[in-house]
Amino acid sequence: MRIGEFSILKSDDRARAGVLKTAHGEVPTPVFMPVGTVGSVKSLGPDDLQDTKAGIILGNTYHLYLRPGDELLKRRGGLHEFMRWNGPILTDSGGFQVFSLAGLRKLTEDGVEFASHINGSRHFFSPEKVVRIQENIGSDIMMVLDECVAYEQDYEYTRKSLELTTRWATRCREAYPRDRGDQLMFGIVQGGFYPDLRRESAEQITDIDFEGYAIGGLSVGEPKQEMLELMRYTAPLLPAEKPRYLMGVGKPLDILEGIAAGIDMFDCVLPTRNARNGTLYTSRGKVNIKRAEYREDDRPLDPECDCYACRNFSRAYLRHLYVSRELLSYRLNSLHNVHFFVNLAAKARRAIVEGRFFSFLSSYRDIYGE
Amino acid sequence: MRIGEFSILKSDDRARAGVLKTAHGEVPTPVFMPVGTVGSVKSLGPDDLQDTKAGIILGNTYHLYLRPGDELLKRRGGLHEFMRWNGPILTDSGGFQVFSLAGLRKLTEDGVEFASHINGSRHFFSPEKVVRIQENIGSDIMMVLDECVAYEQDYEYTRKSLELTTRWATRCREAYPRDRGDQLMFGIVQGGFYPDLRRESAEQITDIDFEGYAIGGLSVGEPKQEMLELMRYTAPLLPAEKPRYLMGVGKPLDILEGIAAGIDMFDCVLPTRNARNGTLYTSRGKVNIKRAEYREDDRPLDPECDCYACRNFSRAYLRHLYVSRELLSYRLNSLHNVHFFVNLAAKARRAIVEGRFFSFLSSYRDIYGE
Repeated sequence: MRIGEFSILKSDDRARAGVLKTAHGEVPTPVFMPVGTVGSVKSLGPDDLQDTKAGIILGNTYHLYLRPGDELLKRRGGLHEFMRWNGPILTDSGGFQVFSLAGLRKLTEDGVEFASHINGSRHFFSPEKVVRIQENIGSDIMMVLDECVAYEQDYEYTRKSLELTTRWATRCREAYPRDRGDQLMFGIVQGGFYPDLRRESAEQITDIDFEGYAIGGLSVGEPKQEMLELMRYTAPLLPAEKPRYLMGVGKPLDILEGIAAGIDMFDCVLPTRNARNGTLYTSRGKVNIKRAEYREDDRPLDPECDCYACRNFSRAYLRHLYVSRELLSYRLNSLHNVHFFVNLAAKARRAIVEGRFFSFLSSYRDIYGE
Repeated sequence: MRIGEFSILKSDDRARAGVLKTAHGEVPTPVFMPVGTVGSVKSLGPDDLQDTKAGIILGNTYHLYLRPGDELLKRRGGLHEFMRWNGPILTDSGGFQVFSLAGLRKLTEDGVEFASHINGSRHFFSPEKVVRIQENIGSDIMMVLDECVAYEQDYEYTRKSLELTTRWATRCREAYPRDRGDQLMFGIVQGGFYPDLRRESAEQITDIDFEGYAIGGLSVGEPKQEMLELMRYTAPLLPAEKPRYLMGVGKPLDILEGIAAGIDMFDCVLPTRNARNGTLYTSRGKVNIKRAEYREDDRPLDPECDCYACRNFSRAYLRHLYVSRELLSYRLNSLHNVHFFVNLAAKARRAIVEGRFFSFLSSYRDIYGE
């Protein structure tokens, strides 16, 4: 396969099992990408990541730009070398983080000015600049700069915003044409919570030649049902022959519903964030490890899991580490949760290949339905 | 070798290279024992500990008694099984922690009443009780209950205290006679900062048949020189054919000075505590990893070190993790520092075996002298 090639091996209704080729290896899809915000997937080393069987991780352009700095990363040989992760890395564009800094940012046609959350210093992201930053980081997949609008944003603002996002996407592609190097670039469809604007955005963005297309602007506070409906509406608007990425989503069942809708790639901070507050994912549902019922429970957290934590430790030990606020708790919990999410996507893939994805999905609806 | 046997393979002046046989394996001495306060060596899993080449770790009776509780540990199969550490474990008696709770404790002939630092609940440690707790924990080496007196304690109090420590030591040995099981028991010499009282305590304690003898009550705030002098005075008062353990000491050079004085075993929280505040130990001296000079330093932390952190990461990355307060920083820093201390004792052992311990010591005096 050439770099950027995406091939679909098998479909089960809209769900697809594919492979995306990147400069750091092939990514079997559907895939869950753990989030390594600022140069590490929180509390995990590359050895731990290997144990989770993660095939690709995500880095945050906004965070890495501020610290340690993209130029420093370039001088170090890029993020892969810096953090000693030899697998593929996708970087977001920083757009989502910047647009989360409400009040601390100023939007113009040219880009967005914002204040660092670390020390308040002023910075400016243009489409060209976030491409250059991602080149310095050396990620395998870059994302274009986009404007992510708030859940209750009005129609007119959202329409103008999606057009700005399109103009920025064009500028990003021009700043990194296909023949420039081995990094792939994905476009992002916006359009808020208006189906016709989603369609308009999808048409404009897919007119630009990207190696993959993402759905942005979901999971920003809307009701679950609305997110799922809009995702199901938008996914088929993206080219079937390219990878589709649902940004920042989500819970286990959301991921499976996304796969059912034809999405191939997912990322979310949920596994690591919840690990740190003691909420662990298992094949039988969520476990709040601090509960007294686990005090003397000698079973592994998830008997069906083969991660380092489940191979070695009891629920009683994991509970003890958590209630004693031992640092090892963060590592073991994060390792397990990331493994769960990575494995969920891998199991979905096998189910697609074997033509039983919908009974697989249905079994998780029973466990993780809300 | 039978369990409890200690054999000295080689001596270099007073420094000795030996082996102590425990129920969970042989411990080559001199040895540094990393501290696993409450069921984990802070931030490290058993896989990390294996990478540090730690041969024996220490558990704190006081902490484990309060949380998760020694009876719970016994029901889980003991601390080894609970934390999945198959090597030897030494447990202190809780005496030092209890005597650090100034004002929250009440001493009688029978034992000591104290308040938990977690929730203020009242508890009582007698010599017999700390033995029973350590039996429940299932450590390979138990320590007797002792009274650790403050640095500036007066002569008369210290004299009475060392006699109480002797009576408690006798009661501990009676509570766990040699034929009761595979756990070893070490006596502790006290006597404050009065050489004649140290001698008296050593005579009384070594009259009791323990498998090893410890020097307690040092590193409690006294000037460094006083600590070293008293250690050098006390060590030869302990039987040459038994292992000698200097409790809670210390910095790298203190450990080597201890070895020079004929001490075999050491423990200290310094490597893990300093790891968490960014102070790292290397073959060239201490490194404060947050310093700007390491920002773009691509070298490993210690080019002579073969720990996981030094095999994989640059100073620039370790600095970035530390200043970004990433949880992985604690793990990598702790792993390295523990490896440094464990390896320091192992290197001292090789130097003794090869008859060059004093030139080895002298090279560290140049690097770590104060």
